[in-house]
Amino acid sequence: MRKKYVYLFSEADSSKRELLGGKGANLAEMTSLGMPVPQGFTITTEACTRYYEDNEVIADEIIAEIYENMEKMEKITGKNFGDPNNPLLVSVRSGARASMPGMMDTILNLGLNDEVVVGLAKLTNNERFAYDSYRRFIQMYSDVVMEVGKSYFEKLIDQMKEEKGVTLDTELDADDLKKLVAMFKAEYKNAKGTDFPSDPKEQLIGAVKAVFRSWNNPRAIVYRRMNDIPSSWGTAVNVQAMVFGNMGETSGTGVAFTRNPSTGEKKLYGEFLMNAQGEDVVAGIRTPQPIEKLKEVSLDAYNEFVAFAEKLEKHYRDMQDMEFTIENKKLYMLQTRNGKRTAAAALQIAVDLVDEGLITEKEALLKVDPKQLDALLHPQFDENALKAATPIAKGLPASPGAACGKVYFTAEDATEAHKRGEKVILVRLETSPEDIEGMVASEGILTARGGMTSHAAVVARGMGTCCVAGCGDLVINEDEKFFEAHGLRFNEGDFISIDGSTGNIYGEAIPTVEATISGNFDRFMAWADKHRTLKVRTNADNPHDAEQAIKFGAEGVGLCRTEHMFFEADRIPAMREMIVSKTVEQRKAALAKLLPFQRKDFEGIFRAMQGHPVTIRFLDPPLHEFLPTDNKDIQALAKDMGLPFDELKATIDSLHEFNPMMGHRGCRLAVSYPEIAEMQTTAVIEAAIAVNKEGMKVIPEIMIPLVGDIAELQYVKKVVVSTADAIIKKAGVDLEYSVGTMIEIPRAAVLADEIAQEAEFFSFGTNDLTQMGYGFSRDDAAKFLEDYYAKQIFESDPFERLDQKGIGKLVEMAVKLGKSTRPNIKLGICGEHGGDPSTIEFCHRIGLTYVSCSPFRVPIARLAAAQAAVKCEK
Amino acid sequence: MRKKYVYLFSEADSSKRELLGGKGANLAEMTSLGMPVPQGFTITTEACTRYYEDNEVIADEIIAEIYENMEKMEKITGKNFGDPNNPLLVSVRSGARASMPGMMDTILNLGLNDEVVVGLAKLTNNERFAYDSYRRFIQMYSDVVMEVGKSYFEKLIDQMKEEKGVTLDTELDADDLKKLVAMFKAEYKNAKGTDFPSDPKEQLIGAVKAVFRSWNNPRAIVYRRMNDIPSSWGTAVNVQAMVFGNMGETSGTGVAFTRNPSTGEKKLYGEFLMNAQGEDVVAGIRTPQPIEKLKEVSLDAYNEFVAFAEKLEKHYRDMQDMEFTIENKKLYMLQTRNGKRTAAAALQIAVDLVDEGLITEKEALLKVDPKQLDALLHPQFDENALKAATPIAKGLPASPGAACGKVYFTAEDATEAHKRGEKVILVRLETSPEDIEGMVASEGILTARGGMTSHAAVVARGMGTCCVAGCGDLVINEDEKFFEAHGLRFNEGDFISIDGSTGNIYGEAIPTVEATISGNFDRFMAWADKHRTLKVRTNADNPHDAEQAIKFGAEGVGLCRTEHMFFEADRIPAMREMIVSKTVEQRKAALAKLLPFQRKDFEGIFRAMQGHPVTIRFLDPPLHEFLPTDNKDIQALAKDMGLPFDELKATIDSLHEFNPMMGHRGCRLAVSYPEIAEMQTTAVIEAAIAVNKEGMKVIPEIMIPLVGDIAELQYVKKVVVSTADAIIKKAGVDLEYSVGTMIEIPRAAVLADEIAQEAEFFSFGTNDLTQMGYGFSRDDAAKFLEDYYAKQIFESDPFERLDQKGIGKLVEMAVKLGKSTRPNIKLGICGEHGGDPSTIEFCHRIGLTYVSCSPFRVPIARLAAAQAAVKCEK
Repeated sequence: MRKKYVYLFSEADSSKRELLGGKGANLAEMTSLGMPVPQGFTITTEACTRYYEDNEVIADEIIAEIYENMEKMEKITGKNFGDPNNPLLVSVRSGARASMPGMMDTILNLGLNDEVVVGLAKLTNNERFAYDSYRRFIQMYSDVVMEVGKSYFEKLIDQMKEEKGVTLDTELDADDLKKLVAMFKAEYKNAKGTDFPSDPKEQLIGAVKAVFRSWNNPRAIVYRRMNDIPSSWGTAVNVQAMVFGNMGETSGTGVAFTRNPSTGEKKLYGEFLMNAQGEDVVAGIRTPQPIEKLKEVSLDAYNEFVAFAEKLEKHYRDMQDMEFTIENKKLYMLQTRNGKRTAAAALQIAVDLVDEGLITEKEALLKVDPKQLDALLHPQFDENALKAATPIAKGLPASPGAACGKVYFTAEDATEAHKRGEKVILVRLETSPEDIEGMVASEGILTARGGMTSHAAVVARGMGTCCVAGCGDLVINEDEKFFEAHGLRFNEGDFISIDGSTGNIYGEAIPTVEATISGNFDRFMAWADKHRTLKVRTNADNPHDAEQAIKFGAEGVGLCRTEHMFFEADRIPAMREMIVSKTVEQRKAALAKLLPFQRKDFEGIFRAMQGHPVTIRFLDPPLHEFLPTDNKDIQALAKDMGLPFDELKATIDSLHEFNPMMGHRGCRLAVSYPEIAEMQTTAVIEAAIAVNKEGMKVIPEIMIPLVGDIAELQYVKKVVVSTADAIIKKAGVDLEYSVGTMIEIPRAAVLADEIAQEAEFFSFGTNDLTQMGYGFSRDDAAKFLEDYYAKQIFESDPFERLDQKGIGKLVEMAVKLGKSTRPNIKLGICGEHGGDPSTIEFCHRIGLTYVSCSPFRVPIARLAAAQAAVKCEK
Repeated sequence: MRKKYVYLFSEADSSKRELLGGKGANLAEMTSLGMPVPQGFTITTEACTRYYEDNEVIADEIIAEIYENMEKMEKITGKNFGDPNNPLLVSVRSGARASMPGMMDTILNLGLNDEVVVGLAKLTNNERFAYDSYRRFIQMYSDVVMEVGKSYFEKLIDQMKEEKGVTLDTELDADDLKKLVAMFKAEYKNAKGTDFPSDPKEQLIGAVKAVFRSWNNPRAIVYRRMNDIPSSWGTAVNVQAMVFGNMGETSGTGVAFTRNPSTGEKKLYGEFLMNAQGEDVVAGIRTPQPIEKLKEVSLDAYNEFVAFAEKLEKHYRDMQDMEFTIENKKLYMLQTRNGKRTAAAALQIAVDLVDEGLITEKEALLKVDPKQLDALLHPQFDENALKAATPIAKGLPASPGAACGKVYFTAEDATEAHKRGEKVILVRLETSPEDIEGMVASEGILTARGGMTSHAAVVARGMGTCCVAGCGDLVINEDEKFFEAHGLRFNEGDFISIDGSTGNIYGEAIPTVEATISGNFDRFMAWADKHRTLKVRTNADNPHDAEQAIKFGAEGVGLCRTEHMFFEADRIPAMREMIVSKTVEQRKAALAKLLPFQRKDFEGIFRAMQGHPVTIRFLDPPLHEFLPTDNKDIQALAKDMGLPFDELKATIDSLHEFNPMMGHRGCRLAVSYPEIAEMQTTAVIEAAIAVNKEGMKVIPEIMIPLVGDIAELQYVKKVVVSTADAIIKKAGVDLEYSVGTMIEIPRAAVLADEIAQEAEFFSFGTNDLTQMGYGFSRDDAAKFLEDYYAKQIFESDPFERLDQKGIGKLVEMAVKLGKSTRPNIKLGICGEHGGDPSTIEFCHRIGLTYVSCSPFRVPIARLAAAQAAVKCEK
């Protein structure tokens, strides 16, 4: 059977989101619910995939199917494509499986040409409307399909307004617009060498191709990478009959949420603009009105919309984000989708939906993106400092949280400053999808234009980044890089602070404090804890982090990196003395100085963890990391240590490594210098004994890093066990402890059955496993991975999201092999991946005991673990 | 059933070599053949293993079994252990499964004490003999068992000789020896704090323990590492009744081979010393007589020995190396084993044994150690240069080949000099097992003392290192580091040349030329080629190496490293220009300059390979390797390139990598700069077309290195194929080529099924796979691997011998996965492991198509491949 690539909204099976994309599926669903949806058809994601397989050509059979469905659409609408007497105009929009707002291209008013526009003017008796639509179409089509002239067209409009002495687009009349049309077409021909296409069918295929192509535009690739969307999914294309919100003052357009996307409050929330097309609202060029005001303008339309909104929310059992258009008083539903929302709103909505009996606890767990929780845990302003500060201006509270940083006016400058380590507030007239990288790099985003549903607001909420939008008080000069607010001037690099929960803007740096967590949070997280099976531990190298993590619900320390304790100022001299030692005795003497520090640190961590298990990784980095490299510093150190410069220099030189990542580190240090492992064991065991005397039951887990061969582990374990047992015996106490290893070397993963003979637990060090498994170091790969993303060789950063296919295969092998020799082996992950939701799902699936992540990621991991459990039950 | 740890020679099953060790098995076999073997028993290798499991304690049950067997031995010999009236004295010797000559400890004359020695003197009526035996025993026991006083004892003997005004040990009389015994015992007590043990049973257990312990002495560990002997094997211990070659002039001892171990000539070959113990012959302190002379001394013993020798050779179907002792005219066989031999002898013997009908071709193939062939391929002196040279002295031609280098007098100095890159001739009075590392580091070995079976000679032949032994003309002063020969003085660092085939020594540097290969070699290698299934290719980066390899029987190029072509003086400027290019156009312009060089190189290699396949690996190393690093060189280069210093310096700095091994290299370069792959493809395809026009059928195999993900390969392959196909089309010719990849990244190994969808062949880059798989770089690991060997964590260098268990598991996985998607995939190995026999056997077993190695290793690989095939048939 021939594959079907095109479905009418009225015939599509709306459960097939992979095929129809989200927008297409929802249009089909609304159609079947009997709502007033402008009819049309969806070209499937498979057509997009086929387009790329066919080397970016749309196959003839697909084109034929599109034309067939165009004819069906003509029958449904009773209008004809390209017919000046009864013209059918269409919009062409992308619609991927997952929502990618603003990432791909849209074309409105397609089907217009010099004849049709005349007919349209006649039919609507509105010449201005007809030519405005035509001018918009030429502008969009040129930009999107042919990549011609966007900024030049804007300039032409500005010139025209200047000549006429007007300020608003709407003040241009039909004749002005006619002139603009002619100028746009001339520029198109000038740039492309061919006439602007007048055949609507040619326009249609060009537009479909443009949407397919936009799936792989750079900003879409970045967005997909950030949101874990595979490029193989492709996008669908929706061709829909146009309805016009810009047909005069009885027409309009708007967007609304069934609940407040910032707070979750159960109340219709949105805005509209009369005599406008949808892009006017989203682009934030004019500031729209709150949805309630629609009552005053068009009560029928308002009531109808409210009813639809309720129906859709019940139907989808989730908060909906809808677009509508009113054409000559008649309401049309253009789109519905599960609405994006802040973390606080997500929690509120999830909890409310359960209380309203609409969804179960388990379903509620799936309604909050774990990554969003980050926002709840983010800093707020220090209250006292805030009291002392006076806002210089106020905008819309578009995405909650507080941020403080230096002002930058372009996405590029923001990105650069972020790379230099600065905290950045991106200040823009309005943002556009091109700004995405700069937005990611910023602590906060401030715009002068646009509403709560403007690009800046939607994207910032999605990222959990603080945003104040539509602050009309600001006069921004992006070219000269400054802004003014009520006469105060701020230049690039000046500090400001913004509050995304209030909309306040402060002309100074205000210190921030940690987030506090609300009741919804605890209730929701209790559901998460009830339904998850994976334990969540934390990575903590000091008592403070351990305490923080316990507050966030950590159930143990999965990784305590002991070397961090040696870098502190009061310890590093002894560490350096140890490194330059020439004899075992000298080395032991230096280690003896480190022992009390290390023991005290462990005591603090054990106390903070209140009897939860603590995994302590023994010294891991190469020793040269503790020594200076440039001659001046060596000179100074030599003086401090009372060593001849030449001798110290020679020692440091002898420690040089070509590839430190693959050098003398991890358990290799303990093999060469077992006395280091002896000292560390002593510190761990003595600390555990001391804290146990206080009434806790500490079970230290000693972790030997970088093991590649069972003999390495055997050697070091023997040192650990003989040291520990001697101390325990001498102390005359009972103390349990275990000895395990990191699995971070590929060879260890494939020989995990053997290694499990000695190791009582495995902790997957997926950072190093990724480095060794891929054969590239994180530091060095950063440079060339940019080429990999650009050329779509990699879709995501394997250091942020575990590569489940390859590195994950090694992990899975190690799990199976390890269990084959030690069925009850404790299995964890302690790489940075441990806080990544997709990795956590993987860990759940392959049967790990726990994940470990930084304290602030603990709640994220708890929720991700619960989601994994719920998903796997299905 | 209780395990049996001790077997009498007369009851042991000689087929159980793993249990009895080689020496023990052969003693049992000779006993069952009815030969006059001094009886005794073997303590099994399992007892040794148990000893280590029990933390270096001999279990009581084993001690009891030893004592039981001692009693049986007393019954067999009719003598009693510790009985002054009829004393049983024993030797205690190690005997591992594989022969490890001189590596472990031996104790003779055990059972003597102050009473027994008196009885022995009476019984033998030879007081001097009795006390000489006693003094030897105390000396050996102290040294071996208690690690006391060897050099001090030697000094005491020297003092005694000086006082007496004599030069030979044999000139000391019974009273002198008595005094020495007293002095030795006093020193023992002084050093150890306890009396020298007088209880023979205590002596025996002490000796057994010493042998077990010697299994793990540093030189044994080094030897095992060099010879791929696992430490888990352990050693057996043979306790054998003493017979005495030092009982006067009707006694003696000797060693002999059934055929000449240097040439393979079928003629008894050996030497003996009258009135001596075995150690006197082996240690080379006195120069012994040729075996034929034994006729004159003791015709009966001679005839009997000849008969035994023939019988043993037929029995074992191999050349035998035997030790015998004559005690008062009665011949005793002390040992037989397959004799070590030179490569030339090994070939000759293998071929002769086939011609004599004793063995089959396949068996013959197993009789030559592939590594030995190296010696046949080693340089000989340039004939003309040799004619002009006059020897300064002549010694025994102990191990064939020619060598030239700087003189060093200690193993340590030789090792150091070798590390500095010097060619070394190690000059020693005599060598001992402690010298093993220095011997390995040397081009040639020259000794003043010892015969053809001295330590130096045996070890050098085993290693294929040139050796001249027993050159009495030399006066060597090891302390002051010079030697004199006929009045000429040579200091440390002076050049000499030695000829291990003639025994000539030259006081100058004589140039060497390549080896030429004899008829036996061709005949033997033809058998190897007939029986092997694995193909053997070579690694060659230029036409010269390719030609050399073809002469040695290579069947293609398995690895042509194209970057080597860019380092040459006429090319590197264009390479550097390419690297500093700022635009694609600049880069292409620079690459265009490299194209003709590369094309010409490929043409040369294709011609040399005469239609055999050639695998060309595309640019692999990081680009910074082609640029200077220090400011002076950068300054000079900037001048040459007409670039500002700062700009060039900045470019070089930007290329700096933290871990170059894991950086921007391999296919990652082609992803960033596809124009490099375009140029290389152009060079390969144009060269192939040109050479094909000469009538050859070149099938180039283009190999993309460092692939970790199928998408990388897809991207680069697309560049290669589109470039190649365009050239082929333009040339209007037919040309086959294939595109494959190295499997050298662990992730590629575990995803090989996917990668095989694109790769037409795999070549295992086991160097990098070992580095990434173990997570250590070869350069950096060298330092800490010494600790790993010393602590027995590693037994061999994983860069020399493929780690079959871990890295091999990855290779095997990749083979299976690769075949699962592409059943006919061509599979090779091109790391340095490709020339290692044990690795080759592994490659045969897992079903690779070919191995590739350096030209000089090709014959080794051919033989190793044949052996693998023969072994796997069994």
